[in-house]
Amino acid sequence: MRMAELSKESGVPVATIKYYLREGLVPAGERTGRNQARYDETHVRRLRLVRALLDIGGFSIADVRAVLEAIDQQKSMHSVLGRAHQRLAPARTEADEDSRAWAMGRIEAVAEEQGWQLKSCDGAVDSLVSVLCTFRELGHHSSVELLSEYGAAAQRVAEADLGSLTGTDPAESTVERAVVGTALGDVLLAGLRRIAQQNASARYFGD
Amino acid sequence: MRMAELSKESGVPVATIKYYLREGLVPAGERTGRNQARYDETHVRRLRLVRALLDIGGFSIADVRAVLEAIDQQKSMHSVLGRAHQRLAPARTEADEDSRAWAMGRIEAVAEEQGWQLKSCDGAVDSLVSVLCTFRELGHHSSVELLSEYGAAAQRVAEADLGSLTGTDPAESTVERAVVGTALGDVLLAGLRRIAQQNASARYFGD
Repeated sequence: MRMAELSKESGVPVATIKYYLREGLVPAGERTGRNQARYDETHVRRLRLVRALLDIGGFSIADVRAVLEAIDQQKSMHSVLGRAHQRLAPARTEADEDSRAWAMGRIEAVAEEQGWQLKSCDGAVDSLVSVLCTFRELGHHSSVELLSEYGAAAQRVAEADLGSLTGTDPAESTVERAVVGTALGDVLLAGLRRIAQQNASARYFGD
Repeated sequence: MRMAELSKESGVPVATIKYYLREGLVPAGERTGRNQARYDETHVRRLRLVRALLDIGGFSIADVRAVLEAIDQQKSMHSVLGRAHQRLAPARTEADEDSRAWAMGRIEAVAEEQGWQLKSCDGAVDSLVSVLCTFRELGHHSSVELLSEYGAAAQRVAEADLGSLTGTDPAESTVERAVVGTALGDVLLAGLRRIAQQNASARYFGD
């Protein structure tokens, strides 16, 4: 199909598709003339994937590129999931040593409860340290006490996530599902948590 | 304290504090001269709160302003939580009617399982519709099948969230804890989910 059809089919404006082509997020079409190229269903799919990661997952262009490269190079599931794991709260280097050590202690306790191995230099751990140090700075101790409950919920969700990947689909599709499921799963969980909170809040504090 | 001390105490650069003052995120200090003002512990606390919402929670300046106004006006817990709930995936208006109706059906089924009332015009519901429509477009049906499991996990977390708010602290602090706990709780949950996924992934696909 031509660019105009690709735009219609994917719902992505032509100018945006051209931007993604320049940024290397979508592979070039098959050249059919000096200023013309032909595109196919793989381009439609890729555009949908890019939009999902950018618009719903909140990825940056650089994050999307890294994830797509990992998918295209058929890297191992483990390493692709690692890529999708980058997009987390930034590490807060300004927290003092004492606070960081305290936060690590809390995280290690939850890891032990759930039987997790913690990796050093892990973005997810850095992100948790940041959140816990912030709660502590603000004096929100009751939020820190929720860590164990959150750990149990995360374990439950992650088991379901990985269980859903062991299907009969081709490897490429499994990797894509893992990445998208990780990124959009956060959004899903946040939305459901809001609805559950609204309902619990109506019970606890109802007008 | 003077501006320089406020900066040192809060860890926020002077130029940034001035920007927050102009944007109305931090209340003006007590004027002590033509170009001087005095600040106190409430300013340090407010700066920490603003940084937490911006840096860790990923809020926009406008979101932070709305949340702070709700806190300062001592609005009801229910309405402040509503504010903190705005920051979710944008509604995708381009999904067709058929997809949206299908997504609403899935969400209603989970709400029934968990005993939730769904509000119309709710940003959280719109966000879920967007994610589900995206999974459907991409053909990621196994991700859709996780909705029920995610709903159960969200219910568990939300019960813990609200339970932790019914302490003996003053109302202002409770509202602040609710807002920060909601925003940063998402980040906490995402980080823990990554660690749990890495561990489950090592078991399922381990190198």
